[in-house]
Amino acid sequence: MTKQFRGVIPPVVTPLTADRQLDRDSFVRSIDRMIDAGVDGLFVLGSSGEVVFSTDERRREIIEAAIEAVDGRVPVLVGCIDTETRRVIEHAKVAQELGADAIVATAPFYALGGMAEVERHFRLIHEAVGLPLFAYDIPVCVHTKLPGDMLVRLGLDGVLAGVKDSSGDDVAFRFLVDDNNKAGHPLTLLTGQEVVVDGAYMAGADGSVPGLGNVECTGYVRMWKAAEAGDWETVRKEQDKLSALMRIVTVTSGVAGFGAGVGAFKTALALLGVFDTNQMPDPVLPLQGANVEAVAEVLRACGLELARTPEEVTLATQ
Amino acid sequence: MTKQFRGVIPPVVTPLTADRQLDRDSFVRSIDRMIDAGVDGLFVLGSSGEVVFSTDERRREIIEAAIEAVDGRVPVLVGCIDTETRRVIEHAKVAQELGADAIVATAPFYALGGMAEVERHFRLIHEAVGLPLFAYDIPVCVHTKLPGDMLVRLGLDGVLAGVKDSSGDDVAFRFLVDDNNKAGHPLTLLTGQEVVVDGAYMAGADGSVPGLGNVECTGYVRMWKAAEAGDWETVRKEQDKLSALMRIVTVTSGVAGFGAGVGAFKTALALLGVFDTNQMPDPVLPLQGANVEAVAEVLRACGLELARTPEEVTLATQ
Amino acid sequence: MTKQFRGVIPPVVTPLTADRQLDRDSFVRSIDRMIDAGVDGLFVLGSSGEVVFSTDERRREIIEAAIEAVDGRVPVLVGCIDTETRRVIEHAKVAQELGADAIVATAPFYALGGMAEVERHFRLIHEAVGLPLFAYDIPVCVHTKLPGDMLVRLGLDGVLAGVKDSSGDDVAFRFLVDDNNKAGHPLTLLTGQEVVVDGAYMAGADGSVPGLGNVECTGYVRMWKAAEAGDWETVRKEQDKLSALMRIVTVTSGVAGFGAGVGAFKTALALLGVFDTNQMPDPVLPLQGANVEAVAEVLRACGLELARTPEEVTLATQ
Amino acid sequence: MTKQFRGVIPPVVTPLTADRQLDRDSFVRSIDRMIDAGVDGLFVLGSSGEVVFSTDERRREIIEAAIEAVDGRVPVLVGCIDTETRRVIEHAKVAQELGADAIVATAPFYALGGMAEVERHFRLIHEAVGLPLFAYDIPVCVHTKLPGDMLVRLGLDGVLAGVKDSSGDDVAFRFLVDDNNKAGHPLTLLTGQEVVVDGAYMAGADGSVPGLGNVECTGYVRMWKAAEAGDWETVRKEQDKLSALMRIVTVTSGVAGFGAGVGAFKTALALLGVFDTNQMPDPVLPLQGANVEAVAEVLRACGLELARTPEEVTLATQ
Repeated sequence: MTKQFRGVIPPVVTPLTADRQLDRDSFVRSIDRMIDAGVDGLFVLGSSGEVVFSTDERRREIIEAAIEAVDGRVPVLVGCIDTETRRVIEHAKVAQELGADAIVATAPFYALGGMAEVERHFRLIHEAVGLPLFAYDIPVCVHTKLPGDMLVRLGLDGVLAGVKDSSGDDVAFRFLVDDNNKAGHPLTLLTGQEVVVDGAYMAGADGSVPGLGNVECTGYVRMWKAAEAGDWETVRKEQDKLSALMRIVTVTSGVAGFGAGVGAFKTALALLGVFDTNQMPDPVLPLQGANVEAVAEVLRACGLELARTPEEVTLATQ
Repeated sequence: MTKQFRGVIPPVVTPLTADRQLDRDSFVRSIDRMIDAGVDGLFVLGSSGEVVFSTDERRREIIEAAIEAVDGRVPVLVGCIDTETRRVIEHAKVAQELGADAIVATAPFYALGGMAEVERHFRLIHEAVGLPLFAYDIPVCVHTKLPGDMLVRLGLDGVLAGVKDSSGDDVAFRFLVDDNNKAGHPLTLLTGQEVVVDGAYMAGADGSVPGLGNVECTGYVRMWKAAEAGDWETVRKEQDKLSALMRIVTVTSGVAGFGAGVGAFKTALALLGVFDTNQMPDPVLPLQGANVEAVAEVLRACGLELARTPEEVTLATQ
Repeated sequence: MTKQFRGVIPPVVTPLTADRQLDRDSFVRSIDRMIDAGVDGLFVLGSSGEVVFSTDERRREIIEAAIEAVDGRVPVLVGCIDTETRRVIEHAKVAQELGADAIVATAPFYALGGMAEVERHFRLIHEAVGLPLFAYDIPVCVHTKLPGDMLVRLGLDGVLAGVKDSSGDDVAFRFLVDDNNKAGHPLTLLTGQEVVVDGAYMAGADGSVPGLGNVECTGYVRMWKAAEAGDWETVRKEQDKLSALMRIVTVTSGVAGFGAGVGAFKTALALLGVFDTNQMPDPVLPLQGANVEAVAEVLRACGLELARTPEEVTLATQ
Repeated sequence: MTKQFRGVIPPVVTPLTADRQLDRDSFVRSIDRMIDAGVDGLFVLGSSGEVVFSTDERRREIIEAAIEAVDGRVPVLVGCIDTETRRVIEHAKVAQELGADAIVATAPFYALGGMAEVERHFRLIHEAVGLPLFAYDIPVCVHTKLPGDMLVRLGLDGVLAGVKDSSGDDVAFRFLVDDNNKAGHPLTLLTGQEVVVDGAYMAGADGSVPGLGNVECTGYVRMWKAAEAGDWETVRKEQDKLSALMRIVTVTSGVAGFGAGVGAFKTALALLGVFDTNQMPDPVLPLQGANVEAVAEVLRACGLELARTPEEVTLATQ
């Protein structure tokens, strides 16, 4: 395998029409915008790509649209997120059939059973589907933290190609980087952080998967290039600007979790004219009124130019 | 709707062949055994029915086999367990098409967003599928506890027909019973407890959904009849005997969660000759060797007659 | 040792004056009222006795006042609650010196280190202080659940005299009762439940430690006597009435945890004329205004006669 | 107030003799070693200073010994860690009387009640004791995360002088730094991280409180000076070396939490000849045998010279 999965690989946010269909025009626009900005890959059907909200048919539709839009310009990683092994393998086979360059899977969730089962889960997925496999470490969603020694072992055994670390545990991540280096770097280690990517780069991450990259990818691209060049002062400054922009997820009220986070990303993308609406998948409602205003205010404060007013965005889903 | 969902409604454990196919003969045998013992309904594709381990095709196979085997003798409730609303609705439509009498759904999981979304989730499922809908309150799996006031409101609005309470929060359950009674009893309230069902009956539960009922249903049937008759001393004695039997889930070592609980149920059923194997779905492994012995020892101590030796059960999956 | 610690042993709520001094008159009144009602013991400086809010001097004052007021009529158990072993032993020695009949200690908290340390903690306390020692199982406060096998082992070794179970884990409690019986009943097992004490009695508890017993002890005494007589229908009815009364802790708004629970107990006791005020220890504020009204409404609905108006109670701390 | 609390302020680990008395000679040696290395302050009776294991008398002994040993060379911050407000205030008054330059307090623990009470807690401590007050954000121990907006508000109101952030939530920390800067920098913000201090410095931290600084303070001092100079490459390299050393807390087995972390620090200090023993406070046992070897191996791999063999360290507490 010669495909590279290093650098900036945003998890692609999925645009919906007002009646909650996939908005292919907005999707193409957003993908082109990120590739033009210089991203190194795209990760579709991640948590912020609303994978768990999407039916199997919708997932297939998203993969097809993404692979068609990307057209080989960058590698496409596809999230195969489901509760247990056999369900994950079904998604993985679809992803493979549709042309994914790599697949991404979490630990099992809903029914937990200990680390031996988690390890067997990844081994079975790898046996069933030959594509490069990334472990998605996201305890906030699956309630299991993947241990570093298991990850490196699965890397050495050729089961895992890499890890997308959304654990928020930067200490464990640094130890993982270190263990991976000592083992000959079998794993590509990507941080899912958005606000402290600078620290992950200093620790030795091979790249990042920032949801905020959908809204402002140029900064993440500049930050990665600076990190590659060892220009840490630029890294720091770019991170500071992006952290200020990330405030779009904290300025709203009455919303939480996915609705607050991805809700703010979609709202920003609608305000910037990339998405036609900020519609959210059931049972989540889109940000409205004052919350849209609040997101717009952050964008303006960060120097971004709005293509649409907050009122227009609110009206688009009503 | 005249269907009743009161009394003992075991969550049906799913037998697998050694190569992890649905074992239809064992399934029919187990279902007949429970109906003959006098259960009031059956709940297929619950957590212990390995719903989250089963592909969509397997789920369909299980529903079909169950409805055919039951043949109208008792109502069949079908678990429609998936991460978010649209995926749950798809399962619910399949269940409806295949002849389910009621459906059972949890709160959304993996991506959380607050109680307003949970409530909207149940309302959307009800709008999409006309079948009686039970809320499955299982925070250990979905990490949301369903609040009593929301449940009663959804009952009064005709959204929910009842609740299957696997929260382990007996205080909240008693308050829920009380609130439900004050509201005119819109909800049928079933406890998912196995070891403290007596307390739930004293609190006023309308029935129980005990996984252990797969292993020994006659005791649960006797306990329910005694509770209906107000014969609490019999309730207590039956519960004590069943609690002693439930030790099959605590005597094993090196296993946890689903593998320990359902693993022990399947092992007991294999030892009793109801199931052909104690095979488990990927990535879980079946109990073996000393763990099978330990389960057998509990069964013997409780006076149950074994149809197969522990060695035979261990060998059946090797 | 011939002292018995069976039956109803309420955790004594600590009355404060408006300026947050120990209100000895109210304390004596409340203790006499409970002893007159027939309780079998009293547990001072439990969680609801505001042990962790009280300075060492205040703790000493409370123990002295309690032992003087009780005057040998029932056994007095004293909570020796602190972070780690040496601090707990200091409290235990004070309790012993002041005449406690037994001491009650939790697992270590703040800094956790595994079960071997928890077991050593109880052994060291027992070695240092000869009084009967109860383990207080309260994971919601200390974030460790005491395992049943360790408790029974400590009982057999003469380290523990009993357990006060406030874990809310009724399944584990039933298994503990069973294991304790099999071991020859070395432990006296008291449930800290208030709303599902009936279930604990059916499971075989040796008594209860209900905070609500401060407000209405006669019901708990009747329930225990009925349980001893095997009259489960009376047990059930008494529990239903007490559960209705327990709603004082759920009808308030804007308060949580200790402030909601003990706040409601103190407010009820002030409305009933047992306490002079419903004052709370820093940093907690007493219930006021509409919250006091809400508590009063529950008391009236349960047929209790108020000695004071909600306004009077609100004014007493202003 | 002109005292500065910026830079490297290690939480001082407390040496014990084999019979668990304060080892004053080792204490003086360790303090001198850190001050000679250039630390900017010392924090005694922090979590790793075994504050919750120490009786009040022991706490007083530690404060006195520390203040005498420091002799004004650097500021001394004293941890006043206890369950609730009045108990904390008592410790704070002792610290003030003994000459502390600042006090450090956590949110209340054991009994939780919401953020209004947490805020009132800090205000009451400040009212009672005039010393500069640091909030200690350590949710792993107290199960409350201090919200950034509350911290900045308490800073602006003159209640808090700063924050010691041991939350492990680097995203929240970066937002806190940003909010604090926007508010005019009322708070001094210290990170409690050890392995990702570089990221905290890039985020704008005013210093660090690394437990590992007891073992190797010169690296932390160099890292801080490099950060102040904007020499991020040096920051990164120093952090990498310190992260490698931090592996002393992960190479042991059979120990957890405080026993693993502070146990490893004490063991390293004993191997380096700074402490006479690696004794731990009850109920914790010191590292022994293979665990001491494992710590020694890390020290050697990091180029540190051992003054004592692992066998000698193991023997010192036997």
